Amino acid sequence: MIKVGIIGSTGYAGGELVRILLNHKDAEIVWYGSRSYIDRKYADVYRNFFTLVDDVCMGENMAELAEQVDVIFTATPQGLCASLVNEEILKKVKIIDLSADFRIKDVAIYEKWYGLEHVSPEFIDEAVYGLCEVNREDIKGARIVANPGCYTTCSILTAYPLAKEGIIDMNTLIIDAKSGTSGAGRGAKLPNLYCEVNENMKAYGVASHRHTPEIEEQLGYAAGEEVRVSFTPHLVPMNRGILVTEYASLKKEVTEEEVRAIYEKYYGDEKFIRLLGAGEIPETKWVEGSNYVDIGFKIDPRTKRIIMMGALDNLVKGAAGQAVQNMNLVFGLPEAEGLELVPMFP
Amino acid sequence: MIKVGIIGSTGYAGGELVRILLNHKDAEIVWYGSRSYIDRKYADVYRNFFTLVDDVCMGENMAELAEQVDVIFTATPQGLCASLVNEEILKKVKIIDLSADFRIKDVAIYEKWYGLEHVSPEFIDEAVYGLCEVNREDIKGARIVANPGCYTTCSILTAYPLAKEGIIDMNTLIIDAKSGTSGAGRGAKLPNLYCEVNENMKAYGVASHRHTPEIEEQLGYAAGEEVRVSFTPHLVPMNRGILVTEYASLKKEVTEEEVRAIYEKYYGDEKFIRLLGAGEIPETKWVEGSNYVDIGFKIDPRTKRIIMMGALDNLVKGAAGQAVQNMNLVFGLPEAEGLELVPMFP
Amino acid sequence: MIKVGIIGSTGYAGGELVRILLNHKDAEIVWYGSRSYIDRKYADVYRNFFTLVDDVCMGENMAELAEQVDVIFTATPQGLCASLVNEEILKKVKIIDLSADFRIKDVAIYEKWYGLEHVSPEFIDEAVYGLCEVNREDIKGARIVANPGCYTTCSILTAYPLAKEGIIDMNTLIIDAKSGTSGAGRGAKLPNLYCEVNENMKAYGVASHRHTPEIEEQLGYAAGEEVRVSFTPHLVPMNRGILVTEYASLKKEVTEEEVRAIYEKYYGDEKFIRLLGAGEIPETKWVEGSNYVDIGFKIDPRTKRIIMMGALDNLVKGAAGQAVQNMNLVFGLPEAEGLELVPMFP
Amino acid sequence: MIKVGIIGSTGYAGGELVRILLNHKDAEIVWYGSRSYIDRKYADVYRNFFTLVDDVCMGENMAELAEQVDVIFTATPQGLCASLVNEEILKKVKIIDLSADFRIKDVAIYEKWYGLEHVSPEFIDEAVYGLCEVNREDIKGARIVANPGCYTTCSILTAYPLAKEGIIDMNTLIIDAKSGTSGAGRGAKLPNLYCEVNENMKAYGVASHRHTPEIEEQLGYAAGEEVRVSFTPHLVPMNRGILVTEYASLKKEVTEEEVRAIYEKYYGDEKFIRLLGAGEIPETKWVEGSNYVDIGFKIDPRTKRIIMMGALDNLVKGAAGQAVQNMNLVFGLPEAEGLELVPMFP
Repeated sequence: MIKVGIIGSTGYAGGELVRILLNHKDAEIVWYGSRSYIDRKYADVYRNFFTLVDDVCMGENMAELAEQVDVIFTATPQGLCASLVNEEILKKVKIIDLSADFRIKDVAIYEKWYGLEHVSPEFIDEAVYGLCEVNREDIKGARIVANPGCYTTCSILTAYPLAKEGIIDMNTLIIDAKSGTSGAGRGAKLPNLYCEVNENMKAYGVASHRHTPEIEEQLGYAAGEEVRVSFTPHLVPMNRGILVTEYASLKKEVTEEEVRAIYEKYYGDEKFIRLLGAGEIPETKWVEGSNYVDIGFKIDPRTKRIIMMGALDNLVKGAAGQAVQNMNLVFGLPEAEGLELVPMFP
Repeated sequence: MIKVGIIGSTGYAGGELVRILLNHKDAEIVWYGSRSYIDRKYADVYRNFFTLVDDVCMGENMAELAEQVDVIFTATPQGLCASLVNEEILKKVKIIDLSADFRIKDVAIYEKWYGLEHVSPEFIDEAVYGLCEVNREDIKGARIVANPGCYTTCSILTAYPLAKEGIIDMNTLIIDAKSGTSGAGRGAKLPNLYCEVNENMKAYGVASHRHTPEIEEQLGYAAGEEVRVSFTPHLVPMNRGILVTEYASLKKEVTEEEVRAIYEKYYGDEKFIRLLGAGEIPETKWVEGSNYVDIGFKIDPRTKRIIMMGALDNLVKGAAGQAVQNMNLVFGLPEAEGLELVPMFP
Repeated sequence: MIKVGIIGSTGYAGGELVRILLNHKDAEIVWYGSRSYIDRKYADVYRNFFTLVDDVCMGENMAELAEQVDVIFTATPQGLCASLVNEEILKKVKIIDLSADFRIKDVAIYEKWYGLEHVSPEFIDEAVYGLCEVNREDIKGARIVANPGCYTTCSILTAYPLAKEGIIDMNTLIIDAKSGTSGAGRGAKLPNLYCEVNENMKAYGVASHRHTPEIEEQLGYAAGEEVRVSFTPHLVPMNRGILVTEYASLKKEVTEEEVRAIYEKYYGDEKFIRLLGAGEIPETKWVEGSNYVDIGFKIDPRTKRIIMMGALDNLVKGAAGQAVQNMNLVFGLPEAEGLELVPMFP
Repeated sequence: MIKVGIIGSTGYAGGELVRILLNHKDAEIVWYGSRSYIDRKYADVYRNFFTLVDDVCMGENMAELAEQVDVIFTATPQGLCASLVNEEILKKVKIIDLSADFRIKDVAIYEKWYGLEHVSPEFIDEAVYGLCEVNREDIKGARIVANPGCYTTCSILTAYPLAKEGIIDMNTLIIDAKSGTSGAGRGAKLPNLYCEVNENMKAYGVASHRHTPEIEEQLGYAAGEEVRVSFTPHLVPMNRGILVTEYASLKKEVTEEEVRAIYEKYYGDEKFIRLLGAGEIPETKWVEGSNYVDIGFKIDPRTKRIIMMGALDNLVKGAAGQAVQNMNLVFGLPEAEGLELVPMFP
């Protein structure tokens, strides 16, 4: 039985980790870390866990935690994981970081987009970018897994095979992303109030959102060239779900079957990536509560572009689900253990 | 492995049965019945099951079905189950009926409230009202289980211990119930359109809703007297969830501890009924996607009334979850098998 | 042209006052008061007013304000209006208070339910309870109008004629109320976050909500006896709208026509109260954005109760709209001036 | 007083026409046409108009209607207006067509995208495309106004000045549009049910939506060249609102001030187009219920693209509001008469 500690267990991603791990056969949460709710019963913070979790929230002492657990999930603001980690700790425990601290290999880019000094850049190199379907083998031996962002997971997986096979012009890639509101976190801020979000839509972080360099770096590896994308996230009045609509010019004429074959080549055996049939379009509701990413596409001969679409649950495949998938890989468990979550509809 | 057939598998309750049974260790769905979608892939009707269910929809031939399965769930309009069932079939298969056909013992009352002739009244007596926490022992030997309605489950369980112990005046019981919209079913009707329901609230079926006699009959058994309640359902803009607020005059002065002791007496060992702590109030979100009923109460000394509140997910404990719980009881399986569903938040 | 000042203009009720007054022929807002946003452009706080309002927010100096305006609306937390008002000010300016400070005649009851000391009780007597349809004549001469609460307006108007005519047993009156979330205000608090409210329902303030004594006092005047009601508010995932479902035992057998005649007697000529036809049920959406209250009822011969239902927009008839209606009465303008707001659907 | 007839008055756009015209000083609706609800009271179809509209619904006899009214609004399915109009009628009455029948000048393109034969192509030439801010002068003399589509109005107005001034490469224009659900109409179809739309997002009509050629034709006139755009509409769980996010490569380096100057040149004096300040982003909520279009933009030097964003209420500026604006122009009334609708928030 793997002993799990969570730092930041009272955010939405932390709560989702708990939901998933409660049904995980080989893992047990022994440390519910939360700076804001120390000594309060966890089930008082998230009443859905009433009668299911008896623990009280504890602090964020990573050194102490490392003595007690096998793996630490950090679902915390940017910079915190980097400030806590060190070689002593890494000798004792695996770290799966849901923040951005170890996602971007170029520390200068991290510091520029996040406006933070990175205080433990020495671990960036060894950290593995935890996009399971792309970096599966590397994750297996990792001490630090940088769990990808929600927008990023959806954006990259949707375009990855076409980038890898070089059939789209990467300079034309435009990613228009829409997200439910849980991605904004549980902070008590005016823009997140019900009456501000409900019956409303808006773009935000236009041409400046922090997930941009992460997408560019990973798709750059796939394409074998430097990539610059336009990435625009939007806030939509719903709890969960990310939908990306990606536009790119085709380098040459291709048929739908050819494109499908490329997707099949990379994802045909992937349990958590569902390639939709011809003409089918992903909807976020069909993956809600699950670890699936649904992907579809449409070739537009009029504009010689392809429109790629992907949908996932930002708290599952976009955060906690992928984190557990990474844990399973790191510890040599069946990759889908604890993740046989059937999407809930309606 | 129990072989399962579902008649009416493409309604919302049918879809929820599938979601739950896919993770049930001892049951396997072998017949996806649907009058409207015969020969269509089930996963095309509910895309959440894409890659999880390969079956196509079949008809509603109960005789044929009885040859192939161990249990039939009927998630169908009123009157259909009654019209299909007969002694031959009952010798071969168990029936768990999610419609109202066998819930009400007095056939005249059924026919009056439902405006239907009951075509197989001979089975009403043997049918067991499948409110698991109340009729557990009787369910174990049943051939027909009448799975309670969603409003009814919530309304009855919330008041049952106090009715049983006689501390409330049953003639004063008023049940104000609020439901999400999935309870209205998947029929393409104007009042169920998004723009009609969203940002809107209304009562319906005032003083005439069909769940009324079911509540009255069951609470009458508990109280040992004839019961007449005011029951008013309301439609609320959300997918899932029922909340009941019940008002009754106290027969004598009681303390909160005394009331709590009564609830504990009946529900203290029940896994799926969660008695909230002092001053805590149920919220539908805390049980979403799960088989739990959360119950709280408040004594109002000013009016000498008690306000009892209960919340459940209408598609789970209010329909498919309770149906599976009944199946587990009927077949001697662990009662919670397949129902360890952690509520999803947010 | 009446010069208007608003203290608390940046709350939701304040914003609604602005929306309404911008189309009022005889009134002009000259002071946008807001403690939190002093010196910020009002249209930056509420972007809907971009190009429509150029003013910047100002403080809450009521003495200075009284020099500049003819009427002050206070849309502020409890206690503030009482702390600012004095005889000097009342000689210069009319006050329409949207808080509870002057609603309850018995200062002890106010202090008990609100947990506040009332610092200007000397003005309570002269303040007129601004329920226009009930107290129209008194409002016309008032210096201070206590604008009723949103729940209160709906609760009282729905039962008033039957209480007045004595056909219901006031000791049995139960008011189950449901509200959209704008009633909770624009404070950045966790329970008001989108993901906490959306897809969720709950009761709150059970047997203790502050609007209770206001309802009891006013219905007590109508009934000519002391009244104790059970009042339970609920939070529903929508922006605007209050729906009340009220239950009372009938003192004697009455027909629907008799009840209708009573409602007609009191409301037949009221522009803003719409008595629905036989069997029709109010829905909040049909009054959204308008100053209407829609009222319907159903007699239940089985339980000898009547179920009364009322719906209004909590920010209009429940706050800003009624406040403007009061202003019109106070200044001798046509009562509906600025309030010809057609409900918006969908 | 202008006499108005509405054909298709019981759809959502028809209902919005009624809402707006009820407060229009110089117009009066005398014919509520509705194929589905003939002889039913209009206020029974849309209860928001209870006590405001006493009329019953009438049929769609355009010849008879032409005798009685000065202007006919057709808010009907594609093809109907074209099938009803003729020279006799046009001699007697003005027609403002909210369908697509007269929007596209090239009848072959209309027939291809709409899959319909156009039965009165002889009137296409004289019909004026009713985008008021662009074609104001031509509208004034028109007998037939082709009222633009909701997506189209938003898409065109957001890019128009930059297309006209030639600073963006029109071959790179990508329009990612998101809409509330009222745009799908009031038809009782499964995909429009509350539980299918709520908590869900999806693209639809990918690379094939019928508004595409309308956008291309109008932006082609502006740019003076043939234009091919990628246009992808999305369905979002909200009642009203369209948001477009448009991406285009800049032909040369420009500053924000230069772009702003271009927008000011075309829209500086337009009442209903609000150019947001530097860095401000449109949100649909800020225009809800009003005739405004809010427009913002951001230059992205990294990708040498500009991201343009526009928001409007699909039922107002995207349908009924613009139709009334067209009526005002046609009849020489003040352009904003009846349209001083203050956006409603929240």
